[in-house]
Amino acid sequence: MTDEEVMRLALNEAETAAEAGEVPVGCVVVRRGEIIARAHNTREGGKCALDHAELLAIRDACRAAGGWRLNDTTLYVTLEPCPMCAGAILNARIDRVVIGARDPRFGAFGSLFNLNELPLNHKTEITDGVLAEESSALLSSFFRKKRAVKADEGDATK
Amino acid sequence: MTDEEVMRLALNEAETAAEAGEVPVGCVVVRRGEIIARAHNTREGGKCALDHAELLAIRDACRAAGGWRLNDTTLYVTLEPCPMCAGAILNARIDRVVIGARDPRFGAFGSLFNLNELPLNHKTEITDGVLAEESSALLSSFFRKKRAVKADEGDATK
Repeated sequence: MTDEEVMRLALNEAETAAEAGEVPVGCVVVRRGEIIARAHNTREGGKCALDHAELLAIRDACRAAGGWRLNDTTLYVTLEPCPMCAGAILNARIDRVVIGARDPRFGAFGSLFNLNELPLNHKTEITDGVLAEESSALLSSFFRKKRAVKADEGDATK
Repeated sequence: MTDEEVMRLALNEAETAAEAGEVPVGCVVVRRGEIIARAHNTREGGKCALDHAELLAIRDACRAAGGWRLNDTTLYVTLEPCPMCAGAILNARIDRVVIGARDPRFGAFGSLFNLNELPLNHKTEITDGVLAEESSALLSSFFRKKRAVKADEGDATK
């Protein structure tokens, strides 16, 4: 599978999140050519601050791998990971991360800061910009609709 | 309860971890004067890179609070949080973190770097040095014993 093919699956996950009213971020984990986990953000429905797509996928990936070390693994995510998720990626010893869109506000692999540049005991290879426009468009459309709903609700209370 | 009293409970959690062969780190979450979660590191037994004491406690705390926003909450942890856990603390909007020992290698609230100093949408108040010596002693003793076991195993294979 090419990076774009796997990112397409991650984008499908992000679309599933959007349909459920969740910020649309999707993630797929591939180990030695095999998809071992896929997940999307469920923070609102799951009522848990930890339920970002990456953490849910890493949990499933550890289960599939039978241990906490995810070497020989690539994680695909439609939006640049936040500090929590970037830290989890390094803790899990993931070799490579393929990112869709950059996140200037929370991105911890080069946007807000770069966790890879700190003297930690693991670094991960970053590839970015894979289906970035589609990922950004999905996020923009989600937030636009959300604002419109809020504005409608505001009108209804007048 | 004083900070020291709650940290004592977190240290008990860390001791439970050590007895199970896990790196001894313990965590307690208090909301409006009530303990809503306590946990210890189970990374080896749980076979998951996410099973740090803080993440396990935050998951339980979100369940107890019925949502992902843990405002009015203080998290007590025997060792300074790593980047993953520090990110989770900010994502969960935890107001205050009480730390036992500092972690010069992985600590993300002032040692390796300070996540609180980045322009994120939440900051948390840090209190450190609460029962720090006891927490450090527990960690040192754990790693000393582990090295001794390894050395014995090395002798046995000669």
